[in-house]
Amino acid sequence: MEPYRLTATQSLPLIQDAKLSVENYARSLLSRIESRDPTVQAWAYLNPEQVLEQARQLDRVPIDQRGPLHGVPIGVKDVIYTKDMPTEHNSPLYKDSNVPVDAASIAILRAAGALIFGKTTTTEFASVTIGPKTINPHSLPPNSIRTPGGSSSGSGAAVADFHVPLALGTQTGGSTIRPGSFNGIYAFKPTWGAVSREGQKVYSLTLDTLGIFARGVGDLKLVAGVLGIKDDQKPRKAESLKGEKFGLVKGPVWGLAGPGTINAMEKARCLLQAHGAIVEDVELPPEFDNMPDWHAKIMAADGRTTFLSEYRMDKNKLQDFLVNQVENINGWTHAQEIAAFDGVATLRPVIDDIANRYSALLTPSVPDEAPEGTLRTGSAAFNGMWTALHTPVVNIPGFQGTNGMPIGLSLVAARFHDEHLLSVAEAVGAVFEAEGGWKSAL
Amino acid sequence: MEPYRLTATQSLPLIQDAKLSVENYARSLLSRIESRDPTVQAWAYLNPEQVLEQARQLDRVPIDQRGPLHGVPIGVKDVIYTKDMPTEHNSPLYKDSNVPVDAASIAILRAAGALIFGKTTTTEFASVTIGPKTINPHSLPPNSIRTPGGSSSGSGAAVADFHVPLALGTQTGGSTIRPGSFNGIYAFKPTWGAVSREGQKVYSLTLDTLGIFARGVGDLKLVAGVLGIKDDQKPRKAESLKGEKFGLVKGPVWGLAGPGTINAMEKARCLLQAHGAIVEDVELPPEFDNMPDWHAKIMAADGRTTFLSEYRMDKNKLQDFLVNQVENINGWTHAQEIAAFDGVATLRPVIDDIANRYSALLTPSVPDEAPEGTLRTGSAAFNGMWTALHTPVVNIPGFQGTNGMPIGLSLVAARFHDEHLLSVAEAVGAVFEAEGGWKSAL
Repeated sequence: MEPYRLTATQSLPLIQDAKLSVENYARSLLSRIESRDPTVQAWAYLNPEQVLEQARQLDRVPIDQRGPLHGVPIGVKDVIYTKDMPTEHNSPLYKDSNVPVDAASIAILRAAGALIFGKTTTTEFASVTIGPKTINPHSLPPNSIRTPGGSSSGSGAAVADFHVPLALGTQTGGSTIRPGSFNGIYAFKPTWGAVSREGQKVYSLTLDTLGIFARGVGDLKLVAGVLGIKDDQKPRKAESLKGEKFGLVKGPVWGLAGPGTINAMEKARCLLQAHGAIVEDVELPPEFDNMPDWHAKIMAADGRTTFLSEYRMDKNKLQDFLVNQVENINGWTHAQEIAAFDGVATLRPVIDDIANRYSALLTPSVPDEAPEGTLRTGSAAFNGMWTALHTPVVNIPGFQGTNGMPIGLSLVAARFHDEHLLSVAEAVGAVFEAEGGWKSAL
Repeated sequence: MEPYRLTATQSLPLIQDAKLSVENYARSLLSRIESRDPTVQAWAYLNPEQVLEQARQLDRVPIDQRGPLHGVPIGVKDVIYTKDMPTEHNSPLYKDSNVPVDAASIAILRAAGALIFGKTTTTEFASVTIGPKTINPHSLPPNSIRTPGGSSSGSGAAVADFHVPLALGTQTGGSTIRPGSFNGIYAFKPTWGAVSREGQKVYSLTLDTLGIFARGVGDLKLVAGVLGIKDDQKPRKAESLKGEKFGLVKGPVWGLAGPGTINAMEKARCLLQAHGAIVEDVELPPEFDNMPDWHAKIMAADGRTTFLSEYRMDKNKLQDFLVNQVENINGWTHAQEIAAFDGVATLRPVIDDIANRYSALLTPSVPDEAPEGTLRTGSAAFNGMWTALHTPVVNIPGFQGTNGMPIGLSLVAARFHDEHLLSVAEAVGAVFEAEGGWKSAL
C-alpha cells in the first residue's frame, strides 16, 4: 500500500519500527497532493519544503523521546493559528496574515509529535455558507462538481482524498459533521468545552467546538486521547452491536430530509437490527421544536459581538451575511436572544438523560448528499441542535444518495461521553461501511 | 490641572478644540508614570518612545476623521493581545512573546482613535491569586505595602494612580471588581457575551469577560459605547436617587464580610435612603447557596481544558495551582461539573427577574480593604457568583476600611442592562464618592 493511503493508526507502528520514515510518509502524501490538489483545491497554504524539513526533524528524534502522534500528518483548517504558517480565515482582512502562535490544540498536537502539514480551506471565518474553491473529491470533472460542504471544506476533502489521514475543523452549526457526511469520512465534534478553542477564530462562544476528520474511528480515538478527552468512566468496548440499544431521532427538522437521508435512516435501522441491536424511535419533548430558532438566535447574538472588530476595521471587506449580523438585520432583542440561550440550557440535561438510555442516538447528518456546485456549502439544519446542546457527535459514513455520493448519519451521546461514543461509533461504523452500500472510489 | 489628572471625558473636548495635543497629554502621563511607577510597578511593558510616536500620529489625523476615543490613553492588561507590544501573561512560558495581532477589543478601541499605552501587570494567566510586583498606590512605603488586588493588578493601580484614565482588565472570578474596590476606582464587568474576548487569554469560556477601569462613570460609558454595548431600551437618565429602588443582597458568602464591608453596606443603605431612594433587603432563593461551589467547579472544569496546552508545553513552568487544575487534584467528575454548569444556567433568568424589580442590586465587592503585602491578591468570594450569572457589575468606590484603605460596593443589573446599570452607577457614585467617607489622597 502506498503510504498516503495509511490511516494514522496504521502508520504509527511502521514509523516506530523504522519501516517508514516520517520524511517518506510526507513525500508520499505530498506526491498525492501534487497530483490531486490542482483539481480538489483543499489547501489554503501548503509549503512542501517546510513539511519535509519538519518531517526530517521528527525522524531525528530518538525513539524513546517520541510522542504518541510521532510523525502523524494533520491538516489544519485555516481559522486555527499555526505558528509557522499564515492564518487567513478566507478573509481579505487577513490576507497574508501570519500570527506566529500555535492555537492550544496545535500546541498539544505538536507536543505529541504531530506533523502539522498545512492549512485547509474554509468559508470566510468559518461562518458563512459561501464555499471556497474546494471541490468534493468524489465528484470531480468531467462529472458535475459538488461542494465538499463547509465550513471545514478543505479538511473534509483532504482527508477523503488521501492528502492527510487527519485534519482539524471547527463547528458552530454543522461545519464538521456536514463535510464529514458529504465526503464519506468520519467526523467528530467533541463535547463543548472538552478541548480548548484558544487560538481558533471565535464565531460563537456558546456553540464553537474544534472538530476532527479521519478515515477511521481509531484515528479519532488517537487524537481525542492526546487532546485530553476523557469520560468519567472508562468506556466498555462495544465488540459487536448485539444487545446495543439505539434511539432513532428524526428531530425538529426531519421535514428537510431528502430521499438519500430518509433511505439511510431506514437502512441503518435494518442493519442495526440485523446485527442484533435494539432500535427504538425517540420522540423528543415538544420544547425541542424551538431548537432551530434558538440556535439561530444564539449564533446571531454571538456573531454580532464577535465580528464587530472586523466590521470596525473595514466592513466593506466582510461578507454581507456578517455585516447583517453585526447590524442585527433581524432586529432581535437581547431579551429574545437570552431566552434562546437560557432555553437551550434547560434542554441540555434533558437530552443527556435521553441519550443515557441508549448506547447512542442515531440522527441525520445532512438533508441529503452534497449539492452540485461549490458556491454553497449546503445546510447545517440537522447539526445545529446538537451543537447547541453541547453533545458529542460522530458522523458515520456508509450510505449513498441517488447520485452515488456519500451520505453519513450522526451518532450522538450525552455530554462528556465522548470515549463511549467513539467506542460505539467504531462498532457501528464497521457495519455501515461494510453494508451501507457506499464505497469510496478514491 | 495637570493633564495626567484628566478623565477621558475631560480630555476629549480639550484635544478636539486643540487646547491639548495628544502628545502633550501623553507626555504628562509618562512623566507621572516616571515619578510613580518605580514604586507602584503597574506596568509590564511601557515604551515611552512608542507611546509618543503613536500620539504624534494621532495629532496628525484631520479633525473630521477623528474617532470617538481620539487620543484617549488606555492601559491594557498583559493577557490581551496588542499587535505592537509583547503579551507575556506573567508566565515564563511566554517571556518576550510578541504576537503581532490585536485582540478584538483592542482593534475596536484603536479604530476609534484610542492611544494604546502599554501593558499592565497581571497574575499568571489572570488565573492565580499570587500577585505580581505591583503595589497598591494608596499604601506606599514607608506605609505597609498592600496588594492592588488581582488579577488585573496593574490596570487597577495605574488608573487609581493617574498613570492613565482608563485600563482594560479581565474577570473570571473577581479580577476586575476586586482591584476596582482595592484601588478606590470604578470597575465595570459587562454582561457576558456583550464584548468579544477574542485575543484575550482564555481561562473559562463560561466565565471570562473583559473589564474596564476608570475614575468616573462617564469614562466607562464612553468606552462601553465604543465597544457596542447597548441595551434593548435606551436607558432613562437617573438624575437623582429620589424614588429609585435598590435591593441589598448579602448573598451566600456574607459570613466572609469584614468590618469594612459590613460598615460600607450599612452606610450605603443610609446614604441611599437619605437621598430619597427605597432600599429593600433581598433574600435570594436557597439554590443560590450553591453558587460558590458551582463557580469553583465551572472554573476548574474550564481551566483543566484551557491549560492543558501550557501543561504539555512545560508543566514545570506553570504555577502549582494550574498544574493541579489540569491534573484535577479535586477529583471532580464531568457529571459534577455539568451539574454546576447547568445549575448556574437555571439561576440566570431567576436573578434577572429579581434584578429587574430594582434600579439595581447592591452587594459587596470584597470581604474588606486590600490585605497587606503583595504576595496574595485577596479574595474573589463576593464576585464569582455574579460572574457566573453573567450579569453586569460596576464597582462604586467611596467607603473605607479600618486602615483608611478604599472599599467599594457592587451594583448589579439583569443581563444586557449594562447602559441602565451605568446610568444608575453614575447617580449612586456621585453620592458614595461625596459622602461615603473615603477620598483618594493621590
